[in-house]
Amino acid sequence: MPRQLHLNAFLMNTGHHEASWRLPESDPYAHVSLEHYVDLARVAERGTFDSLFLADGPQLWSNLAQRPAGALEPLTLLTALATATEHIGLIATASTSYNSPYNLARRFASLDIVSGGRAGWNIVTTAGAEAARNFGLDAEPAHAERYARAAEFLDVALKLWDSWEDDAIVGDKAAGVWGDDAKIHPARHQGTYFSVGGALNVPRSPQGYPLLVQAGSSEDGKHFAARYAEAVFTAQQTIEDARAFYADLKARTAAAGRDPGHLKVLPGIVPVIGSTEAEARALEQTLEDHIVYTHGVERLESLLQLPSGTLELDALLPGELPPEDAIEGAKSRYTLVVELARRERLTVRQLIGRLGGGRGHLTLAGTPEQVADAIETWFTQGAADGFNIMPPVLPSGLDAFVDHVVPILRERGLLRSEYGPRTTLRERYGLPRPANQHVSPELTAV
Amino acid sequence: MPRQLHLNAFLMNTGHHEASWRLPESDPYAHVSLEHYVDLARVAERGTFDSLFLADGPQLWSNLAQRPAGALEPLTLLTALATATEHIGLIATASTSYNSPYNLARRFASLDIVSGGRAGWNIVTTAGAEAARNFGLDAEPAHAERYARAAEFLDVALKLWDSWEDDAIVGDKAAGVWGDDAKIHPARHQGTYFSVGGALNVPRSPQGYPLLVQAGSSEDGKHFAARYAEAVFTAQQTIEDARAFYADLKARTAAAGRDPGHLKVLPGIVPVIGSTEAEARALEQTLEDHIVYTHGVERLESLLQLPSGTLELDALLPGELPPEDAIEGAKSRYTLVVELARRERLTVRQLIGRLGGGRGHLTLAGTPEQVADAIETWFTQGAADGFNIMPPVLPSGLDAFVDHVVPILRERGLLRSEYGPRTTLRERYGLPRPANQHVSPELTAV
Repeated sequence: MPRQLHLNAFLMNTGHHEASWRLPESDPYAHVSLEHYVDLARVAERGTFDSLFLADGPQLWSNLAQRPAGALEPLTLLTALATATEHIGLIATASTSYNSPYNLARRFASLDIVSGGRAGWNIVTTAGAEAARNFGLDAEPAHAERYARAAEFLDVALKLWDSWEDDAIVGDKAAGVWGDDAKIHPARHQGTYFSVGGALNVPRSPQGYPLLVQAGSSEDGKHFAARYAEAVFTAQQTIEDARAFYADLKARTAAAGRDPGHLKVLPGIVPVIGSTEAEARALEQTLEDHIVYTHGVERLESLLQLPSGTLELDALLPGELPPEDAIEGAKSRYTLVVELARRERLTVRQLIGRLGGGRGHLTLAGTPEQVADAIETWFTQGAADGFNIMPPVLPSGLDAFVDHVVPILRERGLLRSEYGPRTTLRERYGLPRPANQHVSPELTAV
Repeated sequence: MPRQLHLNAFLMNTGHHEASWRLPESDPYAHVSLEHYVDLARVAERGTFDSLFLADGPQLWSNLAQRPAGALEPLTLLTALATATEHIGLIATASTSYNSPYNLARRFASLDIVSGGRAGWNIVTTAGAEAARNFGLDAEPAHAERYARAAEFLDVALKLWDSWEDDAIVGDKAAGVWGDDAKIHPARHQGTYFSVGGALNVPRSPQGYPLLVQAGSSEDGKHFAARYAEAVFTAQQTIEDARAFYADLKARTAAAGRDPGHLKVLPGIVPVIGSTEAEARALEQTLEDHIVYTHGVERLESLLQLPSGTLELDALLPGELPPEDAIEGAKSRYTLVVELARRERLTVRQLIGRLGGGRGHLTLAGTPEQVADAIETWFTQGAADGFNIMPPVLPSGLDAFVDHVVPILRERGLLRSEYGPRTTLRERYGLPRPANQHVSPELTAV
């Protein structure tokens, strides 16, 4: 059997295109509709995806006038989806800057238990002052400090997830002994950002701990991914950039003493699918026609950290822009957008049109065969272990991918046709269950 | 129709009796079994209970040798139960000392949305140094400080839950206007314990916010309840004490400017049910026979804040004990236990036996008629608006209550026979949906 693709369905209310909510099919309340997400999860499961994914930030994003804002808290929604599905992995974003390790470690362990080992955590440090101001800070912590906190957060969470050995529960009713206290290991962590004394109050979960996912592509982000991540979501506009990123990340993972095969790289793609190329382009055009460009200008000025009113719709970006290391927010997104505009000499209007679909992710507009070809090329030429599928419109865009692209990928032997027996998310991604740091493998083997 | 009882099923792994896990029927892994809780929730729904409830504390409780420890994180479990039930309310404990208002407000709003308005929050301040040490503190905050933080936490949470007016979403696709920014009200809170700038990132939920429940019976606790609580769980050993508590709390609620009918008082009872009185006593004896008394002595010494080795199994409590105001932990529980021992001149062994069943809650051992009689008496004589039902063994104790006591209560016209149309938890408790603090009722009526 050839190497298998890993597919992740990135679900976001009415779709990834910013104008998707304005289409006739779209429900303006989709973002808080459990039914909407249950339907999507079941479609993704029909497409034998490895996992689905919910992004998140602990603040109210855009102005409400522009587009849907707010969302169900992702771990809550994933728990509900766990009961509505059987096989698909459930990955949620949660912030290391605005959670405490004890609470978050417990919530992921609980999701992993109720889902039978299908939990994944997309670890983010959360850029932006608005989030910071919801948690007692005046401004966002510096990028490097956020990552230092994230690393310590992970160390604490891993201690907590390993604080129960797998066989700590004895259940000896006759002797009146329920558990073995020698198999409980309090965290006893005293660090720069956290001090956590005790053991977690949930036993070790089916996966040991959730699949660890990461999506930052800055230097700090890649360093962090090489050390901890088992899957990486990334935005890449060209196969050359994607191959360079892939090779770089695998090399960093090896350098960190890990098996590079134990980190899966999944670029995001926005498939705009038509039965002909012209039909796909027409759908793309319909979406662009629904963009409110004044809003796009505001958001672009915000991303580029330019004063309001700087950008002109039908002009190129200004020649002088701040360097990436002056950006405190989403560094790699900033560079990707600036490079895209420069490389293709896009006007502000054109750039907004391109970003409207996937916020910097690659749009693949075409027939199912063309989309499948691009996927196969990237996958077989060292650019990807799989893809983060970001339909521009939901549910129709996911339906189209599952009904028309998935069968081609299956026919080419790149994707499973059925799930087979129930298994954990980590097994879906071809990764081993992590050993408990308190248990010596030699002792276990005896 | 006579005034209706409110029943809440307090679910705790294999039951409220500390020895329940040792009975043949009990599953040593019940505490992390979704199936176990789904079955219990469905039994409670068959009994047309108003709600079910999960207690919690963010630390690993007892030594594992003694009895089941750890639990699924309650909001995670309630979310899963929301999808497995239709009518029953879903109440979880969460701590104001060890959560941030933004995250917790959002999680409860999300649960309220996915459950169709069935969420309730049992607000606790969390006693004990072990919890404190899991959140960066060396020792627990003082009792009064915990309650001051709790009050500010509530104020912030209420601002966040009201930060979206109910009709903030417009969904005007033609004009490209999704929401009305004038109907979003950032919290802009700057206080002693919290500073929270923005609006919540979830729309206002079906109930506006979760039913607010409280269970502290100290002076600080009652003051807090009178101001915020819509339901109160309490431990009362005698009808006289219960009536005094009930009258006191209703008066305090009126004094706080609220309708005393808008706070429901639910004493906890541990029903030990047999088809004859002798059968009930035999079940009680079986449970006591399974208590490991050395563990009970340790826990009692801890509650009474006595040095290890002070208590003797077959002697009375020492004559001199610290006064309640010297206790930093669960003040009202402390006084209840001491008074119970003194009033009935119980030896330490007898006291442990009595506490083993319900940790200070009233045990009602008898036939279904006897249990129903006691419920009716308390309910009709000013001691209760309903009850927190704490089966000593689960699932059998809840089955027994629903199969044998519930029909009697229905026959007497004290309890609904069916739910009728789907409704919110707050409506089940006979309470109005709270108005949004940013919306003037006069303006709404125009």
